[in-house]
Amino acid sequence: MLALRYEDGALRVAEVAAPAREDEALVRVTLSGICNTDLEIARGYAGFEGTLGHEFVGVVERAPGRGELEGRRVVGEINAGCGRCELCAAGDPRHCPRRTVLGIVGRDGAHAEFLRLPAANLLPVPDGVPDERAVFAEPLAAACGILERARVEAGASVAVVGDGKLGLLCAQALKVLTGARVVLVGKHQPKLDLAARRGVETVLLPGLPPSAARAFDLAVEASGSPAGLRTALGLLRPRGTLVLKSTFHGATELDAAPVVVDELSIVGSRCGRFPPALELLARDAVEVAAMIHDEFPLSDAARAMRRAAEPGVLKVLLRP
Amino acid sequence: MLALRYEDGALRVAEVAAPAREDEALVRVTLSGICNTDLEIARGYAGFEGTLGHEFVGVVERAPGRGELEGRRVVGEINAGCGRCELCAAGDPRHCPRRTVLGIVGRDGAHAEFLRLPAANLLPVPDGVPDERAVFAEPLAAACGILERARVEAGASVAVVGDGKLGLLCAQALKVLTGARVVLVGKHQPKLDLAARRGVETVLLPGLPPSAARAFDLAVEASGSPAGLRTALGLLRPRGTLVLKSTFHGATELDAAPVVVDELSIVGSRCGRFPPALELLARDAVEVAAMIHDEFPLSDAARAMRRAAEPGVLKVLLRP
Repeated sequence: MLALRYEDGALRVAEVAAPAREDEALVRVTLSGICNTDLEIARGYAGFEGTLGHEFVGVVERAPGRGELEGRRVVGEINAGCGRCELCAAGDPRHCPRRTVLGIVGRDGAHAEFLRLPAANLLPVPDGVPDERAVFAEPLAAACGILERARVEAGASVAVVGDGKLGLLCAQALKVLTGARVVLVGKHQPKLDLAARRGVETVLLPGLPPSAARAFDLAVEASGSPAGLRTALGLLRPRGTLVLKSTFHGATELDAAPVVVDELSIVGSRCGRFPPALELLARDAVEVAAMIHDEFPLSDAARAMRRAAEPGVLKVLLRP
Repeated sequence: MLALRYEDGALRVAEVAAPAREDEALVRVTLSGICNTDLEIARGYAGFEGTLGHEFVGVVERAPGRGELEGRRVVGEINAGCGRCELCAAGDPRHCPRRTVLGIVGRDGAHAEFLRLPAANLLPVPDGVPDERAVFAEPLAAACGILERARVEAGASVAVVGDGKLGLLCAQALKVLTGARVVLVGKHQPKLDLAARRGVETVLLPGLPPSAARAFDLAVEASGSPAGLRTALGLLRPRGTLVLKSTFHGATELDAAPVVVDELSIVGSRCGRFPPALELLARDAVEVAAMIHDEFPLSDAARAMRRAAEPGVLKVLLRP
């Protein structure tokens, strides 16, 4: 089968054997999405080698122990645990110390004709949700996952810093799920406009009004830049919470004094569970179609990756 | 009256007028304690000028609206709010944006013969608590304040990094208040021994066993050093919480990637309320006497400050 591989420091589309583990479900991928994490892996930042990709929708070919899934459209949670530790026993393998992660840690990913995952990781896609929307389940789940890590009251004020793919999903998800006032802070008017159509307030940098300083209960850092981190911290009221969604590379400068004096919280947030995201997609409560900026055949995945890395480009999809 | 002043970049004991605000209580200081914050102010780090000191015990001379306090021994919460904002109205001026802070922000402090504070800030000292123990109410309250910012289950494991004054109080307070397993990590065997006498486990650096990595639910950074921050983060299990107690100066290097991947929380903690601390002192539940390394008359306060800055020295007291 065809797969987008990162090996020996090089990215290429290659013909490889289909994944083999018979104890896991086999999924024929129908659409996959390129995430910034894919771009980072392809820059050699993440220490992963193999097939890239962790955002997908597909059709189940075989699902050991879950025969009812065969032939159905599915998405899949990307963390596969050991199945034996306390965390896995409790049904949440996201922090299993021996986990693999689809296309990220020790497990071939979704930019391929087929992938394997534990059958337990798969979730059927509601009928009314087309593939082009379902493929956003993973990043939208990550956005919804903020609420596993931080409480947002209905009357709260929330700022999301960064108007890329992640920021757009975080701002919309928080708006829909909490009823809070949500302000998206970014540098690109067209991207801000996309969120504004769904009730999110927007601020185009450098136009933050002085009244925004120390005014927010929660800030989400979704820009992946040290400047974004500083901006987000400056927006928080005393005892406010900063959610770190973006993975920074290397050391970041942090002024710890205001964290102590204002008793701020900085909370890391990675993967979310899929059901809340599927529910939002089924209700069409979040704008994702307008985030699709391009689509390429899997055979042209190397070019798709370059396209996804261009400034201003949001989601690029791959079709096997 | 005599007071230890920091002005124009210089520290000196000076004869100054007694504090004047008639709407506030007047306290005759009987004993005050030198905190690392005093040392930092005297190094010019904090932008404060005036009388230093925020740890004290004293006798009330006058207390407008709280006549029952006159003649009584008291300690005092150090944040004085505007009295009109939402936070002050709710009875907690610690984050009032217009607050002054005794000997730290806009208000003369406790290394003096007299001080003033709002009468509402004063708390009577229980009869069985001598001045030499009561003078620890403020830093012990700060240690107890960790539990306002982070939940610690009885079965939890807690690491405190830094065996200075603050770390010793944090480790002991968390041990007594939570029943958790508490491990104090430090570089000074005599200081570690002090906490060990109160049931705290200790680790002398660099002797952290490999099993300590990623093993703790909560870690308290009380060393004030970037190395301590790195050590503390490395001790946390996924979804663990780091409490920042020390104020760092300037920018600190933080590797944000593990904060996101392991979904850690970093929580700032500054001042605590006094009643839990007074209760611990009344029960003699925390070893503070052994932390007193020296005492000087107020007239010799400049020398006392130098003594407090010597390596290995814990609490130095001033007696007016």
